[in-house]
Amino acid sequence: MDVIEVIRTKRDGEQLSPEQIDWVIEAYTRDEIAEEQMAALAMAIYLRGMDRAEVARWTEAMLASGDRLDFSDLARPTTDKHSTGGVGDKITLPLTPTVAACGAAVPQLSGRGLGHTGGTLDKLESIPGWRAGLTPAEMRGVLESTGGVVCAAGTGLAPADRKLYALRDVTGTVESIPLIAASIMSKKLAEGTDSLVLDVKVGSGAFMKDLGSARELARTMVDIGTDHGVRTSALLTDMAAPLGRTVGNALEVAEAVEVLSGGGPADIVELTLALAREMLASAGLTPGAGGVKDPADALADGSALATWKELVRAQGGDPDAPLPEAAEHRVVLAPTSGVLTRLDAYQVGLAAWRLGAGRERKEDPVSAGAGVSLHAEPGGQVSAGEPLFTLHADEPERFDRAAQALAGSYEIADDPGFGPGPLVIDRIG
Amino acid sequence: MDVIEVIRTKRDGEQLSPEQIDWVIEAYTRDEIAEEQMAALAMAIYLRGMDRAEVARWTEAMLASGDRLDFSDLARPTTDKHSTGGVGDKITLPLTPTVAACGAAVPQLSGRGLGHTGGTLDKLESIPGWRAGLTPAEMRGVLESTGGVVCAAGTGLAPADRKLYALRDVTGTVESIPLIAASIMSKKLAEGTDSLVLDVKVGSGAFMKDLGSARELARTMVDIGTDHGVRTSALLTDMAAPLGRTVGNALEVAEAVEVLSGGGPADIVELTLALAREMLASAGLTPGAGGVKDPADALADGSALATWKELVRAQGGDPDAPLPEAAEHRVVLAPTSGVLTRLDAYQVGLAAWRLGAGRERKEDPVSAGAGVSLHAEPGGQVSAGEPLFTLHADEPERFDRAAQALAGSYEIADDPGFGPGPLVIDRIG
Repeated sequence: MDVIEVIRTKRDGEQLSPEQIDWVIEAYTRDEIAEEQMAALAMAIYLRGMDRAEVARWTEAMLASGDRLDFSDLARPTTDKHSTGGVGDKITLPLTPTVAACGAAVPQLSGRGLGHTGGTLDKLESIPGWRAGLTPAEMRGVLESTGGVVCAAGTGLAPADRKLYALRDVTGTVESIPLIAASIMSKKLAEGTDSLVLDVKVGSGAFMKDLGSARELARTMVDIGTDHGVRTSALLTDMAAPLGRTVGNALEVAEAVEVLSGGGPADIVELTLALAREMLASAGLTPGAGGVKDPADALADGSALATWKELVRAQGGDPDAPLPEAAEHRVVLAPTSGVLTRLDAYQVGLAAWRLGAGRERKEDPVSAGAGVSLHAEPGGQVSAGEPLFTLHADEPERFDRAAQALAGSYEIADDPGFGPGPLVIDRIG
Repeated sequence: MDVIEVIRTKRDGEQLSPEQIDWVIEAYTRDEIAEEQMAALAMAIYLRGMDRAEVARWTEAMLASGDRLDFSDLARPTTDKHSTGGVGDKITLPLTPTVAACGAAVPQLSGRGLGHTGGTLDKLESIPGWRAGLTPAEMRGVLESTGGVVCAAGTGLAPADRKLYALRDVTGTVESIPLIAASIMSKKLAEGTDSLVLDVKVGSGAFMKDLGSARELARTMVDIGTDHGVRTSALLTDMAAPLGRTVGNALEVAEAVEVLSGGGPADIVELTLALAREMLASAGLTPGAGGVKDPADALADGSALATWKELVRAQGGDPDAPLPEAAEHRVVLAPTSGVLTRLDAYQVGLAAWRLGAGRERKEDPVSAGAGVSLHAEPGGQVSAGEPLFTLHADEPERFDRAAQALAGSYEIADDPGFGPGPLVIDRIG
């Protein structure tokens, strides 16, 4: 097969054949197609798109490029969640032990943060002793003993995606819905889960800024999962404002523990319960039947918290150890009194990133203690002179640029005339 | 400046700024932009296009990447011709000495053939002793002493184009009108000519298969030349059938000498005269005024042939030496009698290429004697059992595949009902 012919096919707006897709992914993984050729093809896909059959085959080919985990012999049905990423999105932390406590098995391969969105592994690594890297045997052991596991994806899963993602990152071809969908789904399908719930975020702090794109991405991923025989559904959820009251690694772990202890911010609780119920339904489990617990009960009766502690301990962490704190703090006060009518997720995420919570390049370290605490939420009352944000950083010279990012991030008005929209906007499945 | 931002600008259908274009070309020439990034940008340009201002700036930046020749102190005005390439297109050979004999100076930097179209340098190299590689000082010497020079472009002219062309060749981004136009014009403008005539070919044997694309390419190149202060015009000429009666290196040199001697095929004479008159007009020379000769007179009175011999001798060639001949021949006979209603340029070019006249990779050698002689032309009468083609090759095993290419290349009918169309289809300038 000739790679230039494949590039021309897509360039001219035609459908790639299954044979072309299989060959391109296989040859690229074996370094037999040059990076510049794949870059030209990625841009052609970006601008010409791929239809449902092409995306399904592209995903299948990336999946076939590496290992696949198999949990089909576990006693419990497996279910997994994937979020497209947002600011303050620590939902995996309370969600995994909650769903495990209700009766499903949750094998969760997670990533690290890049840019203004945080990564689940970065957050968990702020727990003293906790480690993200597990062998396949260790992963299965933790999953069997606790009902859940959150760890780093091994390099053997979808290696084609790993290579292609690095290329897309430097060639302006990241924001392509078929390529994003195939990238996410090839990794998720390689995990061998029976069912999957996608949390597709929309708004300033999300990758998808508008509802139309988010809906298209959700639909594309649900179709891929369904075409591969995995029960897949998606919730479209709001990411205009940060989730919860904290943005930062250890700060978010502390907030997750509050939720697992039966408290915590209302939006985190709401989204945790919505996703947990969707995952149980997707796994074929009905709360109240056959010993399956309702997620709200798991949070209320301490069983979710107990599972969290087991999970943390199983990966070397001490769930009772004090979390790291940043050395320096600065408080930003509300300049006027009124209702907080807007709090921009992207700008808050940028502030946390500038404080040290995130990384610029994937080899950079992150600060466990850095981040932003929010003292008000959209729709809430604020008083002039009272704290609006607390900034946490290891180095005080980080505060000025973080405060700049926050300066334009909020609006305070006398009477907003309307409240914030719903957190869960729609369900696709 | 950030290359990903530049890629995104074009990807999203926006205009590249002059600063973005200058920076991209300069950084790419210095190897500071990766091949995969330029490939993504080239595909975005392919699919999104560039407007007149962008193409002009892109050309200017490529021009600025290297040396520029300067013939402004010559006694005669300079004029040059560029053909987009076709089958049997030996026009540069009779044209250069004819225009020089009429009073203009013709600095002609040419290339070698690739694929089914031949290259002027390959043709001239079949003359014993002739060499294409001249230093800038030698080039100027030949131009001053004879009025013309045909030689290889040095690597110092438009190095950005050299690098970009090699990339486009492997990434399916060759057939982009703005990129083709900028590539041709950056090299032609680097030659330092005062005026330029473009022969834009259209039809099966040409790069542009349809009139609309050929017209757009011609318009784009004329605009670039004009925007750079070079008097530029274009003729759109037919390339449905091969030009003349020969396709092959030495075969075409012999045919060019026939034309220079006052004979030769009518289409070659017609196109040589049309382009010569356009070049003289473009150089501001009027036949009959101030000793400027009419091109037809230069062919008739032997002055064009005399200039040809000077030109060949000045570059080491012997214009009177016998030309190389292929060792083997095969004659293809007309299967029926009638009028030759179609003779496909692409298929004849393919046959000549398979006989050894062309090359597959740029480092391949070519055969001087190989090619195809045509014994009939479109609109002419053929008789069953009489020769239609003679194939020339150094190795007899080449004949079968060449004959296959020719098998579907022609049609013979009782009464065509119409004659061939005009050779010069339109003029743009």
